[in-house]
Amino acid sequence: MAFHIVLVEPEIPANTGNISRTCAATGTCLHLVRPLGFSTDDKALKRAGLDYWPSVKLEYHDSFADLKRLYPDGRFFCATTKAQKWYSDFEFRDGDFFVFGKETAGLPKEILEEHKDTCIKIPINGEVRSLNLSNSAAIILYEGLRQLQFKGLT
Amino acid sequence: MAFHIVLVEPEIPANTGNISRTCAATGTCLHLVRPLGFSTDDKALKRAGLDYWPSVKLEYHDSFADLKRLYPDGRFFCATTKAQKWYSDFEFRDGDFFVFGKETAGLPKEILEEHKDTCIKIPINGEVRSLNLSNSAAIILYEGLRQLQFKGLT
Repeated sequence: MAFHIVLVEPEIPANTGNISRTCAATGTCLHLVRPLGFSTDDKALKRAGLDYWPSVKLEYHDSFADLKRLYPDGRFFCATTKAQKWYSDFEFRDGDFFVFGKETAGLPKEILEEHKDTCIKIPINGEVRSLNLSNSAAIILYEGLRQLQFKGLT
Repeated sequence: MAFHIVLVEPEIPANTGNISRTCAATGTCLHLVRPLGFSTDDKALKRAGLDYWPSVKLEYHDSFADLKRLYPDGRFFCATTKAQKWYSDFEFRDGDFFVFGKETAGLPKEILEEHKDTCIKIPINGEVRSLNLSNSAAIILYEGLRQLQFKGLT
């Protein structure tokens, strides 16, 4: 079993580091879409990813369109606070992609419009604009894993 | 609806900051059990918590026993990689407490033994020792919120 997490132009190395740790822990493929807001030698990235960075299944892409061309049958769920549906409203399948935008601005409008039937949000109250990126990725990924009965994990 | 998150002797301010943001976003009460590995004026704490720190329902306690005395009817679920049961095996209720130990060592043995019927783990593979603390808290809290149909959130 493997899900995919896609980070489109992530800005904060500690978030990508934390997400890489979650990916290593679950066999999830991590896709980083350039430009990145940090060097992959960044100390904060390595620190947050601990010593797990080498065991992450990692792909780099020059654009989201490039990535999609490589996975023509993929289902792409786009996380956005502007979505109508909750992430838990969907039945996820092995091989699904969970797509997240940059920390300060989220996903670009074009990507959201292209995937408007598979935009997902995490319910929050009005106090806070959004959750931290690595927390959002962990919540959505683990809902997918839970739905698939955590196959392969213990 | 309100859950409680308890951090017993947290060490890394950015984790507590991220968790405080998640708590503010969901109306969750955050309990910090001393000693903390940082000052609550710490810049990393404030940065990770963004400008949400003042809107978190926050309590400080000198020990976990002190906290339990204040909530004699609370159900305390203790997150540990050593648990037998998955977090999603339980039916959570409004008012439940999710308890997390320090980043480097987890919860002390005494607390785990005292709550052995309500120890919970997040399934992972053998690649990684554990998930990041703030990610773990987000995953478990959102499973509780999902079970209660995200009441009060949108």
